[in-house]
Amino acid sequence: MVTKVDLNSDMGEGFGPWTMGEDVALLDVITSANIACGMHAGDPDVMARTMKMAVEKGVGIGAHPGFDDLRGFGRRRLPRTASELSNLVTYQLGAAQAMARAVGGHVRHLKLHGALANMCSEDRDMALTCYRAALAVDPDIVVMVLAGTQQQAAMEELGGNWAGEIFADRAYNDDATLVDRSLPGAVLHDAATAAPRILRMLEEDAIIAESGTRIAARIDTICLHSDTPEAVAMARELRRLLTEAGVTLQKL
Amino acid sequence: MVTKVDLNSDMGEGFGPWTMGEDVALLDVITSANIACGMHAGDPDVMARTMKMAVEKGVGIGAHPGFDDLRGFGRRRLPRTASELSNLVTYQLGAAQAMARAVGGHVRHLKLHGALANMCSEDRDMALTCYRAALAVDPDIVVMVLAGTQQQAAMEELGGNWAGEIFADRAYNDDATLVDRSLPGAVLHDAATAAPRILRMLEEDAIIAESGTRIAARIDTICLHSDTPEAVAMARELRRLLTEAGVTLQKL
Amino acid sequence: MVTKVDLNSDMGEGFGPWTMGEDVALLDVITSANIACGMHAGDPDVMARTMKMAVEKGVGIGAHPGFDDLRGFGRRRLPRTASELSNLVTYQLGAAQAMARAVGGHVRHLKLHGALANMCSEDRDMALTCYRAALAVDPDIVVMVLAGTQQQAAMEELGGNWAGEIFADRAYNDDATLVDRSLPGAVLHDAATAAPRILRMLEEDAIIAESGTRIAARIDTICLHSDTPEAVAMARELRRLLTEAGVTLQKL
Amino acid sequence: MVTKVDLNSDMGEGFGPWTMGEDVALLDVITSANIACGMHAGDPDVMARTMKMAVEKGVGIGAHPGFDDLRGFGRRRLPRTASELSNLVTYQLGAAQAMARAVGGHVRHLKLHGALANMCSEDRDMALTCYRAALAVDPDIVVMVLAGTQQQAAMEELGGNWAGEIFADRAYNDDATLVDRSLPGAVLHDAATAAPRILRMLEEDAIIAESGTRIAARIDTICLHSDTPEAVAMARELRRLLTEAGVTLQKL
Repeated sequence: MVTKVDLNSDMGEGFGPWTMGEDVALLDVITSANIACGMHAGDPDVMARTMKMAVEKGVGIGAHPGFDDLRGFGRRRLPRTASELSNLVTYQLGAAQAMARAVGGHVRHLKLHGALANMCSEDRDMALTCYRAALAVDPDIVVMVLAGTQQQAAMEELGGNWAGEIFADRAYNDDATLVDRSLPGAVLHDAATAAPRILRMLEEDAIIAESGTRIAARIDTICLHSDTPEAVAMARELRRLLTEAGVTLQKL
Repeated sequence: MVTKVDLNSDMGEGFGPWTMGEDVALLDVITSANIACGMHAGDPDVMARTMKMAVEKGVGIGAHPGFDDLRGFGRRRLPRTASELSNLVTYQLGAAQAMARAVGGHVRHLKLHGALANMCSEDRDMALTCYRAALAVDPDIVVMVLAGTQQQAAMEELGGNWAGEIFADRAYNDDATLVDRSLPGAVLHDAATAAPRILRMLEEDAIIAESGTRIAARIDTICLHSDTPEAVAMARELRRLLTEAGVTLQKL
Repeated sequence: MVTKVDLNSDMGEGFGPWTMGEDVALLDVITSANIACGMHAGDPDVMARTMKMAVEKGVGIGAHPGFDDLRGFGRRRLPRTASELSNLVTYQLGAAQAMARAVGGHVRHLKLHGALANMCSEDRDMALTCYRAALAVDPDIVVMVLAGTQQQAAMEELGGNWAGEIFADRAYNDDATLVDRSLPGAVLHDAATAAPRILRMLEEDAIIAESGTRIAARIDTICLHSDTPEAVAMARELRRLLTEAGVTLQKL
Repeated sequence: MVTKVDLNSDMGEGFGPWTMGEDVALLDVITSANIACGMHAGDPDVMARTMKMAVEKGVGIGAHPGFDDLRGFGRRRLPRTASELSNLVTYQLGAAQAMARAVGGHVRHLKLHGALANMCSEDRDMALTCYRAALAVDPDIVVMVLAGTQQQAAMEELGGNWAGEIFADRAYNDDATLVDRSLPGAVLHDAATAAPRILRMLEEDAIIAESGTRIAARIDTICLHSDTPEAVAMARELRRLLTEAGVTLQKL
């Protein structure tokens, strides 16, 4: 039974004049921030501001590398060779490390973004390539993996530090993949529904699929969305309910 | 009298499908490579390839950060605040460090590019900002400065490692600035003319202006151009003439 | 005395996943939309959506070209040659024309954006270059010029259709330039203050500077800001007050 | 039997400081230039220069739209909705039209680039979407289609002007697709081999596959590569051999 858990959220997804998400508000709720590294979103100034806030609030800093596809926000699957993937991760993680140190912090974890994450959750070789690149930059980095996917399998094979992640607001299929967003019930919209489900997963050390099926899983961190005001309200309420239920929220 | 000197050149200035310069040929001539960091030119794949070649040929790796202005190749003066400048340098140097380590090398020096370099050679505060950011990332890094400019003044003030640089093929004004390219004699086109001039500068520890004026200067490295086939031929011949004259060419 | 006037606002300033401004709400208030053309902001999809809404609401479509500086949002002054300026305007206006026709509209006016606009309000040659390029694409296009600036002088010299523009919420200096934003009173924050000032300008066919000085000016259109929820409220109230005062609001 | 044919080549594929291909030399060989429109390559200045040269040499100007993927040079398959595809083509064609008129020319044909072209040669719906967008911009435009593919089928369905295209230097499979580049004989490297093959295709109004199979096809234009000095030499020699054999080379 899990009694302490990390809450993570994507952050720093502005670019130049544009902002995205409620970073300031969410930084009071979460314990780990996955910060965009300037390829799919983020730029050096956005990174610096976001990391500075994370340091001030004691939130763990993570590099959140994605495809170099600004207009597509890293959500389009781009064909890439292994060496291109490796360079993509290395570059972004290196930049993030220097930026974090410049504001008095350090990059403690890494989580892949968007299409890059999705592809790595299905393709172990691709995940191995990305994670090997990350571990070469920092052997001690904690890699956040989607629990039960090829991301996790890759980290088990590599033997580095990893944290298993579940989504706070998404329903699961029996194979630990997410129920398609277009289906009813795929996305939970309130904390009152989401909290008991999460608590049960933490109690049972397992993902509980929509069908009731129990998939054994190590749950170290819970992903909260950041892109709407509703997301912030739900995140706050979820934090309250988990705390009330005796779960300790602390960074990885 | 300088008896050993470094030869440096800008490298890795391709992007995606585009190439620039004769990197492969020049890496056999120079001792230090200033490698673009993905903002004004270069991308993670170009960086990886260029750094790998530099490691294989024993050439020193330098980060060569510039403005984030791909279309303008970092040659347009962009207004920037101090924190933006700082973030710009930190980001690129961090990325370069990780990329260099991934190919078995390390970033040993830093040289600013294009308009960023020109602005810092005129404006000490701006140079201080950029170099402070670099030294915060790596206190041991060697900063290449344009000898006799505000770049050098900034490094003297900061007290870090620096290397004074002169141009192999450009005529100097009496205040150590370069003679405008549009004027006759501003650019030297053959090694036979350039070599004796450089040798005299090395002998006298000074920049010799076009007028004959002698400006005391520490000369640690000579900048060779990389962007034309003629540049490579001239670089080779210059190396030959300097070696013949008893100058040892070695990396910083 | 002006009895009818156009209300214009910048629109379509999103990019990829990012949005900016309250376009939907403002399209019910304004009569002319200046739509970003994909260089400083906007992309083909954002343009299509914005133009489609403008057509549906009977709002006039304008091309709003700016510098190709996405991260700087076209607000940084970029040095450019005359032919580069000309190509920049031609390209964006041509793209906008085709996009407008594809949604059943047409580009009727042109207004320069950001730093490009500012530079052209100070430099008649630069304005002449940009406007000549626009008139070569469409000799009948209406060019919105900042009343009393070199933009207006350039259009007077060229002899094409133009519309004089004032800002709803900015105080003016005696030479028709804007009072610096950092000074007290430079920006008006409520319609109750702005409306009487605008009405007086319309009555007197003149810009009324902060000092009370009257600068004769043709006023055809009033610029409303679009980037905040407050801006929308102020725009609505301003429209109400002008209408109440007997001014007809109609597109150019 | 075809007695006159057009020779086309991709052009204007530089960006900012980077050049690609031997445009100047090839413009003396070809009769139609497919000019990049600023998304996968090209920028307003490169477009203007290239179009100006085409006008001066009497070469037909074509818009050559591709995916907005500069780093991937439009060669990566990007998932796109129908409206996104449509906007992509409309925007680029509109920009190209204005640029062409500004240098005294006009866009007479359109040819899709890279991954966008490949996807449309396999997927009729996608080709229909792209070509409908182009015809809405200019109902008289000539669309270059890869002979025998879904591109051609789409234009036959739409009923606009089209020109069938074959490659000068590529071997064909029995279904009119190209033999994979990795296979021996897939690419022809000299004009002496390519010319007789092309002449036979022109005589028989058909693509002759590597196996000897004859696929009836309307051949209006032959695609020459532009990216290497060898390409130029081969293009020149091919032009000489076709002329010698009595084929008239003239633009569409």
